[in-house]
Amino acid sequence: MSNLDRDYCLQLDRQDPLAALREEFDLPAGVIYLDGNSLGARPKAALQRAQQVVQQEWGSDLIKSWNKAGWFDLPSRLGNQLASLIGAAENEVVVTDSTSINLFKAIAAALQIQTKDAQRKTIITERSNFPTDIYMAEGLTRWLDRGYRIVLIDSPEELPQVVNSETALLMLTHVNYRSGYLHDMAAVTALAHHHGALMLWDLAHTAGAVPVDLHAAEADFAVGCTYKYLNGGPGAPAFIWVPQRHQAAFSHPLTGWWGHAAPFAMQPTFEPTAGIRRALCGTQPITSLALVECGLDVFEKTDMQAIRKKSLALSELFIALVESRCGGHPLQLVTPRDPDRRGSQASFTHPHGYAVMQALIERGVIGDYREPAILRFGFTPLYTRFVDVWDAVEVLRDILDSEAYDRHAERHAVT
Amino acid sequence: MSNLDRDYCLQLDRQDPLAALREEFDLPAGVIYLDGNSLGARPKAALQRAQQVVQQEWGSDLIKSWNKAGWFDLPSRLGNQLASLIGAAENEVVVTDSTSINLFKAIAAALQIQTKDAQRKTIITERSNFPTDIYMAEGLTRWLDRGYRIVLIDSPEELPQVVNSETALLMLTHVNYRSGYLHDMAAVTALAHHHGALMLWDLAHTAGAVPVDLHAAEADFAVGCTYKYLNGGPGAPAFIWVPQRHQAAFSHPLTGWWGHAAPFAMQPTFEPTAGIRRALCGTQPITSLALVECGLDVFEKTDMQAIRKKSLALSELFIALVESRCGGHPLQLVTPRDPDRRGSQASFTHPHGYAVMQALIERGVIGDYREPAILRFGFTPLYTRFVDVWDAVEVLRDILDSEAYDRHAERHAVT
Repeated sequence: MSNLDRDYCLQLDRQDPLAALREEFDLPAGVIYLDGNSLGARPKAALQRAQQVVQQEWGSDLIKSWNKAGWFDLPSRLGNQLASLIGAAENEVVVTDSTSINLFKAIAAALQIQTKDAQRKTIITERSNFPTDIYMAEGLTRWLDRGYRIVLIDSPEELPQVVNSETALLMLTHVNYRSGYLHDMAAVTALAHHHGALMLWDLAHTAGAVPVDLHAAEADFAVGCTYKYLNGGPGAPAFIWVPQRHQAAFSHPLTGWWGHAAPFAMQPTFEPTAGIRRALCGTQPITSLALVECGLDVFEKTDMQAIRKKSLALSELFIALVESRCGGHPLQLVTPRDPDRRGSQASFTHPHGYAVMQALIERGVIGDYREPAILRFGFTPLYTRFVDVWDAVEVLRDILDSEAYDRHAERHAVT
Repeated sequence: MSNLDRDYCLQLDRQDPLAALREEFDLPAGVIYLDGNSLGARPKAALQRAQQVVQQEWGSDLIKSWNKAGWFDLPSRLGNQLASLIGAAENEVVVTDSTSINLFKAIAAALQIQTKDAQRKTIITERSNFPTDIYMAEGLTRWLDRGYRIVLIDSPEELPQVVNSETALLMLTHVNYRSGYLHDMAAVTALAHHHGALMLWDLAHTAGAVPVDLHAAEADFAVGCTYKYLNGGPGAPAFIWVPQRHQAAFSHPLTGWWGHAAPFAMQPTFEPTAGIRRALCGTQPITSLALVECGLDVFEKTDMQAIRKKSLALSELFIALVESRCGGHPLQLVTPRDPDRRGSQASFTHPHGYAVMQALIERGVIGDYREPAILRFGFTPLYTRFVDVWDAVEVLRDILDSEAYDRHAERHAVT
């Protein structure tokens, strides 16, 4: 990267094959948004779609919309649209409930399948996994009370030592929410399978940002989020993937009426439906669910390889600029330099991480803060420009050089 | 009801103290909507609120809205707004997840509390309960695998015989979704408590339609729906009530990060927060959730006693008109004639119930069909007029008199 200046970044934008996709989004003026890994920006189409759902489908067509507007089929229809982004086949994904609830279903199903081998009593995951993943495993296993143990590892390098014949389930988030570390999905899944363990992937920070092929990796289950890189809207329902080969054995305790073989027969006994819809439970929040489509539609104008290429170029540029332009400050990169091990973000520690992030946000550069002391910047190739990266680092440099942050700032809740 | 004709109904509307509230709703022209017990009509305010959430809160303020727009507090804030409609106190209700998921939490918590008495192994409910209530109890108890049994009764009259010292939980829907039968909440709760059982009420067809006082009845837990009589929008998140006295002991397996004592501390071990927010699990669908407020706001312009008075007047009128104007047809009332035992609906069986309902819908009279052979009509006092009742019965009479329905109509899924 010779002549690494703002003009060079503008040139990269002019050469960017994804540049036009920024027009699909409504981005506030004066803001550089590097937090799409927390809440994706709004596709322009979402406003009209919200009006359509509220005014026409709910207001005018009322109850008829369950069929006429396809509300009842939305979880499957959106799941099929999402499938190609993660290497899933048709009728293997539904968009429904929250990631937490979907984790519960998948963990339960995995443990149930593993009961044929009584010695498999451990669930392995990372201590640095997003907490809800660990909490849901805790909640389930505490209630089952059958001697399951959760083993927390501190580094992916421990995996070959800890996965063994007692492992029921290996459960990892593909891209770590904090560090951006990206697991080798195929290799880790093969390791789990070598020991007879099942493999559950959380794709919260993967879907829409990093190409994955769940089938090629022979993964067993996956869940993920639609409101980050998929731009589905605040708290939009999550997804769950169950490959065809596991669907018949996919059994979980959240047996609500939407997962019944004949939901409108109103039978007093539960009988799971065939196929992926047995991962459904209760009635879904239609307005939020419908907006997921607007986010997914944008992906039909590009492909995951092009997104990955730009994603890595953005994070490479950001890391290089922070290290060259903010070199004298105590910033420590926690995201892997190896692009094969990096998601679509760059995280740095700083002793006053929270205060620095608050100062950045006040200056219109929106990343986020994560305990402990981590400045996190996410790159959404659909709408982030190279010049945004340049400008963001310049604001960061200015804040650090001038110490324009409040060292005593209190921490507030931010999701 | 002398001189029971259309003019008399118009006169009732002129005298109706709730008449003006119809203006709060957007109702399609040419439609008589008697299905608010399935999906409530759209409050006019919901369109602007949806635009505000999508355009301003999501589009412009992005991630800041978790605090600035109060997204993170929405489950509690809406819960507090809803509380007065059901006799709950402040900080006892959250709006979150689906009714099915909330049932799971409440059933689990009840069984956990009852483990101090090892002989309490039954959950009693009605065979005619809404299926998901039974299914969720099935799912939980099958997975716990500790000898719990679900006892299904066929009539409320069986309750004094079946509730006994083995009963862990009595779980009933206050107003039956199909028949409209309304339980005596205080008496049934007292019966449960007399035998040491806990009492869980499903208020899906109660909240916003029938006054209840959960505290006066000394109920233990309640769940309910916001998209029926509360007009919160299609599939809008449900609610769960846990009274203060049970909150410390309220424990369930769905321990997601939103129920953690310090959700942003990102600790690897779950620790439930104090208070009602321990009933939360994962991230909520904000757009759907926010619209619930528009429905609740309308209730602040009236009170549940006025709603109940009009509700019973509407159902009385409907029943009287069906029986007098459609007298020669094989319609059988399945809803109690006793107003103290009747919710806000009237259901009739007809041998060609499905086909008759389809014909009604084609003529703009929207009720719904429920297996087996039941025509169900719901009355929402906020927007249903007495003249609507007259006109609906006249359309029904015309369809029956002229046999203008397809006896061979196939049944389709309708929620």
